[in-house]
Amino acid sequence: MQEQMLEQIKRGVDEVLLESELIKKLEEDRPLIIKAGFDPTAPDLHLGHTVLINKLKQFQDLGHQVQFLIGDFTGMIGDPTGKNVTRKALSKEDVLENAKTYQQQVFKILDPGKTQIVFNSTWMDKMSSADLIQLAAKHTVARMLERDDFNKRFKGSQPISIHEFLYPLIQGYDSVVMKADIELGGSDQKFNLLVGRQLQEIYGQKPQVVITMPILEGLDGVQKMSKSLNNYIGIADSADEMFGKIMSVSDELMWRYFELLSFRSMTEINEWRQACDEGENPRNYKVRLAQEIIERFHNTVAATKALENFEARFQRGAMPDEMDEIELNIDSEGCAIANLLKQAGLTKSTSDALRMVKQGAVKIDGGKISDPKLIIAVDTTHVYQVGKRRFARVSLKV
Amino acid sequence: MQEQMLEQIKRGVDEVLLESELIKKLEEDRPLIIKAGFDPTAPDLHLGHTVLINKLKQFQDLGHQVQFLIGDFTGMIGDPTGKNVTRKALSKEDVLENAKTYQQQVFKILDPGKTQIVFNSTWMDKMSSADLIQLAAKHTVARMLERDDFNKRFKGSQPISIHEFLYPLIQGYDSVVMKADIELGGSDQKFNLLVGRQLQEIYGQKPQVVITMPILEGLDGVQKMSKSLNNYIGIADSADEMFGKIMSVSDELMWRYFELLSFRSMTEINEWRQACDEGENPRNYKVRLAQEIIERFHNTVAATKALENFEARFQRGAMPDEMDEIELNIDSEGCAIANLLKQAGLTKSTSDALRMVKQGAVKIDGGKISDPKLIIAVDTTHVYQVGKRRFARVSLKV
Repeated sequence: MQEQMLEQIKRGVDEVLLESELIKKLEEDRPLIIKAGFDPTAPDLHLGHTVLINKLKQFQDLGHQVQFLIGDFTGMIGDPTGKNVTRKALSKEDVLENAKTYQQQVFKILDPGKTQIVFNSTWMDKMSSADLIQLAAKHTVARMLERDDFNKRFKGSQPISIHEFLYPLIQGYDSVVMKADIELGGSDQKFNLLVGRQLQEIYGQKPQVVITMPILEGLDGVQKMSKSLNNYIGIADSADEMFGKIMSVSDELMWRYFELLSFRSMTEINEWRQACDEGENPRNYKVRLAQEIIERFHNTVAATKALENFEARFQRGAMPDEMDEIELNIDSEGCAIANLLKQAGLTKSTSDALRMVKQGAVKIDGGKISDPKLIIAVDTTHVYQVGKRRFARVSLKV
Repeated sequence: MQEQMLEQIKRGVDEVLLESELIKKLEEDRPLIIKAGFDPTAPDLHLGHTVLINKLKQFQDLGHQVQFLIGDFTGMIGDPTGKNVTRKALSKEDVLENAKTYQQQVFKILDPGKTQIVFNSTWMDKMSSADLIQLAAKHTVARMLERDDFNKRFKGSQPISIHEFLYPLIQGYDSVVMKADIELGGSDQKFNLLVGRQLQEIYGQKPQVVITMPILEGLDGVQKMSKSLNNYIGIADSADEMFGKIMSVSDELMWRYFELLSFRSMTEINEWRQACDEGENPRNYKVRLAQEIIERFHNTVAATKALENFEARFQRGAMPDEMDEIELNIDSEGCAIANLLKQAGLTKSTSDALRMVKQGAVKIDGGKISDPKLIIAVDTTHVYQVGKRRFARVSLKV
């Protein structure tokens, strides 16, 4: 039982520091306090964000107490250097509004009854400058400069403001106040999470176990999922969009998504993977993944409908039985749709291609697309259609 | 007049940053705010400390307003690393008590009516941690590491706690709150004083002019005057002690003391120096310096009495006309009295010498000494007497 729990917690994680401490904490057989910190800025979550939230959900299912920390204290300060115009000081009202938006989104995964939302302004607003100096005394400049990004900036003679050294300390101090048993974060947060361990020890607490989660790759399978790279699946995407996007990922990426995004057991997932290795069409499992994701963020009805819509497009017989089979060699970061259409000979130029996409005259596997910036991942094969008559089955290879 | 004022201000200083700004401020023809910061620890001032206070006095005499800042805010925090056991947190009562001791001492030089004593806890106690973060954003790590001592420690892999970076910022912020026109400090404080300039500019003020004063050499003429090196003249020393100590310094050091400790004009001092160059005995001027210092910290009567005592010892004819002339080669840091007596053959051993000093059986130029740790400077010649009969005229050379 114990071992099974540990296996489940370790699924998909990047690092556990330290596993021996994690085991001890689990043996204590009490609800552990699981901390995860979030920015107080207006969130618009995509599946990349949910990797961490899914892990919180697992802890909830195991009976532990999730504390969803909104780091509003520094958000209400804004960027005091004034360099970052996008980071303006937020009012108390902004923060509460954003928190509500967060909740609406994360409660599609987390159990509201087992989730505590906390704000670090609760304790930080009361902290005097003298207290902050005491806190700053607990860490050295040299150790702070070991942090990857600080190190790079320091060596590259890019300025680091002194207040930037205070933020990791405040984040670590949050763990002290919350008496966190475990803190989850992205792998890029490792340094800050370790500061929490260190401060808890100084304040006489048992250090929190740090669990880092990997950064999820976007639809292209290469770069991290992000809105600005336009390779994301938003949790507010329509069911049809979600379906189409998931169906478009490479088979390899599908298994990665299964591990990090599905709530199916790894035993089951491994069986399916085995089946595909032995010849079954991975598309069947892509459909299952798409169904699970849509059920989570919409509902069962929407999932069924999205599947029907997808199948209808194929059954409508709109596609010719025979068409050009084209293989394009591209670089590993994928290929923009306009380039693809031009290189496959489906349009005369990329500007022509862009126009067709905008007019809604382009379909991938029978599904209309609307984003002229869409990137198609390498190692995929789809049927591309422009207008009524032009078709090609295009495979992308490196 | 203007030029004369400037000459007077520049007397003995290490640096003025920037002189052009100083001239402009003097031309404004209003009482300037002159800031000088002091530790809140219990002070026991010696002449080394008074170099700075003398400069404040000059500004007072020119009609400016001296603000004597006691940095009690950080003193009340103590050393948060706990590494420095001597720097315990001070209570409000300790601070006020220490401030009183300061006043008693500095008011022997400064005019109490023209001196404002301020405490930085007045504004720092009200500062929130958010405000301190804003302040910390105004300076970069790289610039802070340019400070000499930080630089050495960083390169030498000696830990620097992050709160140590906050102290110079607080010191600089004091200048903002005080709207300081000029800040005085020791030459070792230059970096911190410049932070004040920088912050004032950021806060929309004209930057303060920074004036650094040199560190006064002790009686040995080499190391800085300090209690722990036992080469100091305390302002609480008795008149006879002061007299004897000043008479013991080398001629070269006497002129340095004249520049930094005397209130005589440089014109006059330069005339005297000229006279000595032409053959007059520097001892005559050493007497004048001793008189001036004793008048300042005791009174005229005590100064006269100390001179009489000194002369009496010489006139008493207690010294033989002929005695051994001994030259000792020592290192530049001076020679401990016990070693000197032994090497000059006046005692059998150094422990014998120490015992004789403690018994009050040792005289230098006829004046009884009591400090067994006394260091005699290089390039001096004195008559040393042990008991009633043993005499030697000892010259110390490198």
